[in-house]
Amino acid sequence: MASNSGRRLNIDNINPHVRAAKYAVRGELAVKSEEYRAALQNGATDLPFKQVISANIGNPQQLDQKPITFIRQVLSILENPALLEKGDVLVNHLGYKPDVLERAKKLLAAVGSVGAYSPSNGAPAIRQSIAEFLERRDGFPANPADIYMSAGASSGVNTLLHIICADEKSGVLVPIPQYPLYTASLSVLNATCVPYYLDEQKNWGTDLATIRAAHEKAKAEGVDVRAIVIINPGNPTGASLPEEDIRAVIEFARQERLVILADEVYQTNVFIGEFISFKRMLRQMQKEQPGTYDNIELASLHSVSKGMIGECGHRGGYFELVGFDPLVQAEIYKFVSIMLCAPVIGQCLVELMVNPPKPGEPSYDLYIQEYNAIFNGLHERATALHKAFEQMEGVECGVPQGSMYLFPTIKLPPKAAKAAAAEGRTPDEFYCLRMLEATGVCVVPGSGFGQKEGTLHFRTTFLAPGTEWVGSIVKFHKEFMDKYR
Amino acid sequence: MASNSGRRLNIDNINPHVRAAKYAVRGELAVKSEEYRAALQNGATDLPFKQVISANIGNPQQLDQKPITFIRQVLSILENPALLEKGDVLVNHLGYKPDVLERAKKLLAAVGSVGAYSPSNGAPAIRQSIAEFLERRDGFPANPADIYMSAGASSGVNTLLHIICADEKSGVLVPIPQYPLYTASLSVLNATCVPYYLDEQKNWGTDLATIRAAHEKAKAEGVDVRAIVIINPGNPTGASLPEEDIRAVIEFARQERLVILADEVYQTNVFIGEFISFKRMLRQMQKEQPGTYDNIELASLHSVSKGMIGECGHRGGYFELVGFDPLVQAEIYKFVSIMLCAPVIGQCLVELMVNPPKPGEPSYDLYIQEYNAIFNGLHERATALHKAFEQMEGVECGVPQGSMYLFPTIKLPPKAAKAAAAEGRTPDEFYCLRMLEATGVCVVPGSGFGQKEGTLHFRTTFLAPGTEWVGSIVKFHKEFMDKYR
Repeated sequence: MASNSGRRLNIDNINPHVRAAKYAVRGELAVKSEEYRAALQNGATDLPFKQVISANIGNPQQLDQKPITFIRQVLSILENPALLEKGDVLVNHLGYKPDVLERAKKLLAAVGSVGAYSPSNGAPAIRQSIAEFLERRDGFPANPADIYMSAGASSGVNTLLHIICADEKSGVLVPIPQYPLYTASLSVLNATCVPYYLDEQKNWGTDLATIRAAHEKAKAEGVDVRAIVIINPGNPTGASLPEEDIRAVIEFARQERLVILADEVYQTNVFIGEFISFKRMLRQMQKEQPGTYDNIELASLHSVSKGMIGECGHRGGYFELVGFDPLVQAEIYKFVSIMLCAPVIGQCLVELMVNPPKPGEPSYDLYIQEYNAIFNGLHERATALHKAFEQMEGVECGVPQGSMYLFPTIKLPPKAAKAAAAEGRTPDEFYCLRMLEATGVCVVPGSGFGQKEGTLHFRTTFLAPGTEWVGSIVKFHKEFMDKYR
Repeated sequence: MASNSGRRLNIDNINPHVRAAKYAVRGELAVKSEEYRAALQNGATDLPFKQVISANIGNPQQLDQKPITFIRQVLSILENPALLEKGDVLVNHLGYKPDVLERAKKLLAAVGSVGAYSPSNGAPAIRQSIAEFLERRDGFPANPADIYMSAGASSGVNTLLHIICADEKSGVLVPIPQYPLYTASLSVLNATCVPYYLDEQKNWGTDLATIRAAHEKAKAEGVDVRAIVIINPGNPTGASLPEEDIRAVIEFARQERLVILADEVYQTNVFIGEFISFKRMLRQMQKEQPGTYDNIELASLHSVSKGMIGECGHRGGYFELVGFDPLVQAEIYKFVSIMLCAPVIGQCLVELMVNPPKPGEPSYDLYIQEYNAIFNGLHERATALHKAFEQMEGVECGVPQGSMYLFPTIKLPPKAAKAAAAEGRTPDEFYCLRMLEATGVCVVPGSGFGQKEGTLHFRTTFLAPGTEWVGSIVKFHKEFMDKYR
C-alpha cells in the first residue's frame, strides 16, 4: 500500500530522527536470515544450505552456549520461591547445592518478589553487591548510590546520552568502527556524532592524535563536544587498551572537559592483554596527582549479555557514575523512573554475575568448570575462524584478542563493486548478502559499524559451534572471487 | 557541592527536556518513603509508624499479592530447563502438574533459551499466541506481524510517541488526570501535550465536547495534533468506557485524523461495567460502514504488570497496531531493534497471561481459585477504602469501578493552603507529605496526574492488606483538618 494512503502517519511525516537512525546489526540481512530460518523450519528444500547461522549478533545462547548451572538454578527458585519449602527435594533429587538455596533466599530478601517493581535505580542490596565487586576489581571504593541498574547496557547508554545531549549541537566522540547503538541513539536524539577512527594497524587501538583531530574539527564546526565513548575491550575488534592509552584518554578528557563513557561489557572476554577499568585508572591518577583529575566525570557500563554469562535475553546491566554532579544524578534518577525499573530477575542475574560462587563453596567446582569451558571454547572458535580467514584471498584479520567478534578487512575486485553499485548497495553489503544467500551465514557489513573510506570489512561472531559453517564461508569466498575477479 | 563546580555537566546545561519532565509517582514523596523504610529496617524507633505503605504505585507483589502458581512454576522451568529431565520429581514431589511441564516445553521451543535475544519485535510463537487471544477476546482476526512485545506497556508508549512526534509542534491529546508517563515522555521528546479533562461528575468518563475544545484550541495555537491517548479502564480513576463513548472517540479520530493510543492495561481490573477494546469497536464500525473507518490507525497496549497477574518487576507487555502504514511499521521495528528486544522471560509471561490454563486442564482449578481470590480481594479493599473516605470531612470519592486506584477529591481549609505556600508546595503536595510523615502511607498528590484548577485530589492504590493503614489515614485527616480549620 502506498505511503500517502490517507493515513495520519507516513514515512514522510513521522519522527525524522528515528528515520535517520541506522542499525545494521538487525537490519535487512538479519531480517532476511530470519526468513530463511522460517523457510527451513517449514521444510524448504530449495536453499543451498540446511541451517542459518546468525553470526551477526553476539547472542551466545541462540547458538550453542549453555547457561551456567549455578545462575539458572538460583533464578528458578527466584521465579518459584515455593521451591524453598522443598529444599530437601531440590538438594537430594535435583542436584541443587546448599549455596544455591542460600543465595536465592538472600536475593529474595533483597527484592521481595521478582514480580515487584524495585526502586528506579535498582534494588539497594544488589547495588551494594555490585559496589563490593567493583571494590574487589579495582582496589578503590564504590558507592551503591552511584550505581544504576539498567535493562542491558543498551538502556544505560540510552539514559546517559539522553542526559548529556542538550540539543543538536551537543556532540559525542564515538569510535569507528563502533557498535551502532551509539550512532543510532545519537540520531534519534538529534545530537551530533563526532566519529574518530581506531587504528587498524595497531590492533584497532585508540590513537590520541586522531581523536584530537576529530575533536578539533568538530569544535571548529561549532559542535559542543561533551563526551567521549570508549569501547574497551573493543567491539567489533576485541582489543584491550593498555594502561598508557587509558591514561591518555583520561588526560585528554581532563584537558577538553569531556565526560567519559566507558563501555566495558566485554571486560571478561579477553584473550590477549589485560582488562583495566577506566575507574581504576582514574582513581589511580587522582591518587598520583591530587586535585588534577577531580572534575572528571566517568560513566562505566557493564552487562550480563556478554562475558561467559551470555544472558542477553534477560536484559540485565548497570552503570556506575564517578564524579557526577548530585543534581545531574537526580535527573538521571528521574529519567530512569519514567520506565519504572530494570527487569528485576535481570537485576538478580547481575548480582550472580558479580558475585559468583567462591572457591570452597559447594557450587564452585561446577561453576568454574563451566566458566572455563565457555572461555576456552570461544578462544578455540576464534582461532579456527581466524585460521580460515588467513587462507582466504584478499582477507586480512588480526589475531583474535577478545570480545565475541572478528572484523576482517576484505579486498574485493572492481567488478564486484560495479555489481554492487548496480544493485544500489555498497560492496561490503553486496558481499555479505551473497554470503547469506549461498551459505546461510549472516554477518554484518563493515559499513554497519563505520570504516575508513576505501576499506571494506565484515563483522562475524565466533560463537557458532562446529567447523562446517567456517568451511562454507571459505568456499563461498573462493567462488565469489572467481566470479568477480 | 555547587552545581557549577567545574564539571562538564550541570543542572543548567544537561538536556532541558529531561529536566522539564515530571514524574510524581516516583518523585520526592516516594524517595522520602524509601528513606523511612530503610530507617525502620535499621531499627529506627522515633517514627510515629511501624511500617511504610507504598500506596503511590500499582505494585501488587510489593505489598501482599502472591504470584499465580501456574505462571511461576512454568517460569521456574524456563529458567532451569534441566528440571525437565526430572519431570517425575517435579510432578511427584513438587506439585507441578503435567500441563506446567507441557507449557514450559512449548515456550522453550518458541524461544530456544530465555537467555537468548529474541527477534526485536518478540518471539514469533508468542506473538502468534497473543494474536489468538485477541481473536478470542474481540471476535476479529489479529496478525502476529502487527504485534510488538515491549518491556511493560511503558516502553511501548515510549516507542509509539517516538515515532508519532516529529518535532515540537507535534501534539498528543492526553487525558487529565492521567498516568504521568505520557506527559513525562512528551516532555523528554520536546513534543506538545494537549491536555483534555475527564469529567469527574460522570465517573471520570470522556466528554467529547471537552476533547473537541482542547483539540480546537491546540490547532488554533499551531499545534499539529496527531494522536489521542485514551486510558481505558482509567488510571487513576478506574472507569470503563461504555460503547457509545468509544464509538464517539473513534468517530472523532476519523474526523480529525488522529492516531488512537488505547492504553488498556487495566482491562481485567473491572468492578463495574464491562471492558470493551478499541480494536473490537473499530472492527465493528468498519463492518457496519464499509470504507468509512479504513484509515484509522490504532495502537493498543497491554502489560503483565496489572490485572490479577501483577508481575510488574518482569517488565512484560505488548502493543498491537491496526491500520498502520507498512513503511511506518518498518521504522517501529528498527526503533525497537536499537534496544535489541524485550526481556524474554517477560515475553513468556505475556504468553502465560493471554493463554492461561483452560477448564479441565490440570492446573485450571488452582489457577482460577487464585485469580478470583485476587480479584475479590482487590474489590473488597477498594470498597473498605472507599467507605473510609466517606467518613472523612471534605473528601469525596466515587464508587470504586476498577483499576488499582481511588482518586478522591479533597477540600482543604485556606489555612492549609497558606501553610503549603509558605513551604513552596501546592496544598495537595503539602497534605500528602504530612500524611506520609504521620502515617507512613505514601500516596501521590493529584497535581502529579493533573487536576482542574482549584480542585485537589490524591491517588492511592487499594493494594495494601489489612485495615490499620486505612484507619491511620482517617485519624491523620481528622487531625490535619483540626489543625488547619
